[in-house]
Amino acid sequence: MGLIVQKFGGTSVADADRIRNVARIITETYRRGHNVVAVLSAQGDTTDDLIAKAAEINPNASKREMDMLLSTGEQISCSLCAMAIEAMGYPVVSLTGWQAGFRTNSAYGDARIKRINTERVMAELDKRAIVIVTGFQGVNKYDDITTLGRGGSDTSAVALAAVLHADLCQIFTDVDGVYTADPRNVAGARLLEEITYDEMMELATLGAQVLHNRSVEMAKRYNVNLEVLSSFSGKPGTKVKEVVKTMEKLHVRGVAKDKNVARLAVVGVADQPGIAFKIFSLLARENINVDIILQSIGRGGTKDISFTVCKADSQRAKELLEEQKNVLGFERVDVNDQIAKVSIVGAGMIHNPGVAAKMFEALYNAGININMIATSEIKASVLVDAAETDRAVQVIHDRFFSEFGEN
Amino acid sequence: MGLIVQKFGGTSVADADRIRNVARIITETYRRGHNVVAVLSAQGDTTDDLIAKAAEINPNASKREMDMLLSTGEQISCSLCAMAIEAMGYPVVSLTGWQAGFRTNSAYGDARIKRINTERVMAELDKRAIVIVTGFQGVNKYDDITTLGRGGSDTSAVALAAVLHADLCQIFTDVDGVYTADPRNVAGARLLEEITYDEMMELATLGAQVLHNRSVEMAKRYNVNLEVLSSFSGKPGTKVKEVVKTMEKLHVRGVAKDKNVARLAVVGVADQPGIAFKIFSLLARENINVDIILQSIGRGGTKDISFTVCKADSQRAKELLEEQKNVLGFERVDVNDQIAKVSIVGAGMIHNPGVAAKMFEALYNAGININMIATSEIKASVLVDAAETDRAVQVIHDRFFSEFGEN
Repeated sequence: MGLIVQKFGGTSVADADRIRNVARIITETYRRGHNVVAVLSAQGDTTDDLIAKAAEINPNASKREMDMLLSTGEQISCSLCAMAIEAMGYPVVSLTGWQAGFRTNSAYGDARIKRINTERVMAELDKRAIVIVTGFQGVNKYDDITTLGRGGSDTSAVALAAVLHADLCQIFTDVDGVYTADPRNVAGARLLEEITYDEMMELATLGAQVLHNRSVEMAKRYNVNLEVLSSFSGKPGTKVKEVVKTMEKLHVRGVAKDKNVARLAVVGVADQPGIAFKIFSLLARENINVDIILQSIGRGGTKDISFTVCKADSQRAKELLEEQKNVLGFERVDVNDQIAKVSIVGAGMIHNPGVAAKMFEALYNAGININMIATSEIKASVLVDAAETDRAVQVIHDRFFSEFGEN
Repeated sequence: MGLIVQKFGGTSVADADRIRNVARIITETYRRGHNVVAVLSAQGDTTDDLIAKAAEINPNASKREMDMLLSTGEQISCSLCAMAIEAMGYPVVSLTGWQAGFRTNSAYGDARIKRINTERVMAELDKRAIVIVTGFQGVNKYDDITTLGRGGSDTSAVALAAVLHADLCQIFTDVDGVYTADPRNVAGARLLEEITYDEMMELATLGAQVLHNRSVEMAKRYNVNLEVLSSFSGKPGTKVKEVVKTMEKLHVRGVAKDKNVARLAVVGVADQPGIAFKIFSLLARENINVDIILQSIGRGGTKDISFTVCKADSQRAKELLEEQKNVLGFERVDVNDQIAKVSIVGAGMIHNPGVAAKMFEALYNAGININMIATSEIKASVLVDAAETDRAVQVIHDRFFSEFGEN
């Protein structure tokens, strides 16, 4: 008998039938003799509906009141799920974030979990009750309700699995697991049996969107065994762990795309030390995250510095730079938001030089132009024109994963 | 500068415009220099929608989970109202039942307030913040969410006014105050400037539905100054207090009807002591509330005992009695649920014999038959045929309140 934490996302609890389906998954696990703690997101569109209600009244509502409002979404889905489990005749209790002991800092809308007081959850498990916990939320030191921001429910589940020393944390979603590429867009995409935390983190960051980075990072830190699987298919999913079997011998684990990217080019800066520091410390102070950075070789005393930010930050980044034009001394700032980032990820890449070159070759053969390149130990990313994104992913995926691909 | 508790019901916060209207009422009170604590119900149909969601999943859901679910309704309306007040530029904070310190017993769905820890509310008021509190809810000793049942939000407001020693507790609703009869049905119904707690309690019980009995009882016990008024008209409403000015010299304060009544007649019981005790202790054990009781004079060794219960209990009451037919020894039980109770209420009645007689006279003149009569110090009730209800209320009201009426 073990302790299993199961997390169900918004689509998994979207209506009464799906809630009953989730209740079946939970009770089947329970019937096999396990203790079960289930962490639920809000139903399907609830959060969007609540945001729309708030926007109608005050488009600039405080984050504190937004959290007060939004946290009701999970409370609704959790109590409904508990009722479905009651109807099946099992002992069950639903708990809000504060009831389940989630204490966070005070960053409303994007709070971090500071600790979890597990007394209540443990007491319920001792009584052999199934425990349903609201994801995405907690309370701060003032006892005010906070929400954890994007990927919050995954993080709630992993954090709970960590403090409860759960044997497994299952993240149920609407796909069968982690694929070598997005199966909705890429022909031949394969389900991965296993993946390492590091690979998963790169894939999450790179836009695979199956599991939020923050939760994987936490799983790695506390060594929580993760499994990503479908709440609909009933099939085994993808295990995420520290070390994976090398049986598959995949150097590249997956191909991901990210269209939420803009490239800025600071053209004609003086070719002297300290200029990159000035640019990027300026952006960092304003909380603008910079991803890929490329600096041209100096020519005629000037050089160009290009970098990528997420689309929403691109105009502000341009304005910040232009405000400091005199200090930084450049010619102009170009913004291109019609681009996308395509990446390959694999822990095996570090020991296998030439993997990135294969990616470039695949793109070359397809006539797709590469704007920028960035590589690290376990990934290689290229910027391509937005219009070419899906084709780029497909040809790269074919190169590594098709029957005739080399991986 | 005083402290005013304002309560707004579900229709008052039904949509964005109405929430803005409530925000205006609150902030105008605040601008006049008062501290304001506002207690809100859930928006219009929210509670019914949530009940429907639950019924789809589990028609027999536990009350604990129902409370977990339903308590989100007020959390939504309160955070939205706080956002509306923020948009107007005033300091404001919304608090759930547990954040506002409402501790209740564990009777889920119908909990009683045991105490209110006012620290948080007081701290916010000290900062001159407007405090918005969810009505209808609290937490029990296990920190589980409870709801207060019917009239719960009124009770929350009055209880908060009591512990905070508020100068006034205003109950905002969709009518202008307490009328001499339901103005939607009775021509010439007049708004009362003042009414005593006792009169209000009789009217609440008798179906006037403008203020729940439980809250009036609490207001009387803690001597909370109440005012019932409209959130739409902006006019002064009705003050509810211990003693009212006698200026108006109204012996009768109002006429109320209650159609949720059924009459049972236990026909042909033995005319011997103890039979009434046996019947009514049997019903009391099963939590069936009996209202009016009438016992005929014995004739030929037997008598009849008639009494009223609410419609929902009538069949069960009949069955309970019939199960004990051998013990009780009666001929048969008749049930009539095509009846209604019409009552006049007024603290002045006790000193003015003949008031009830005027009511009977008015009914006689209109040719309306009286089924049963019951009187107390401050009220007189009659049972009439359900079809005659509205006409009965009108002729009685005319008798006491029309230009030519005697009151």
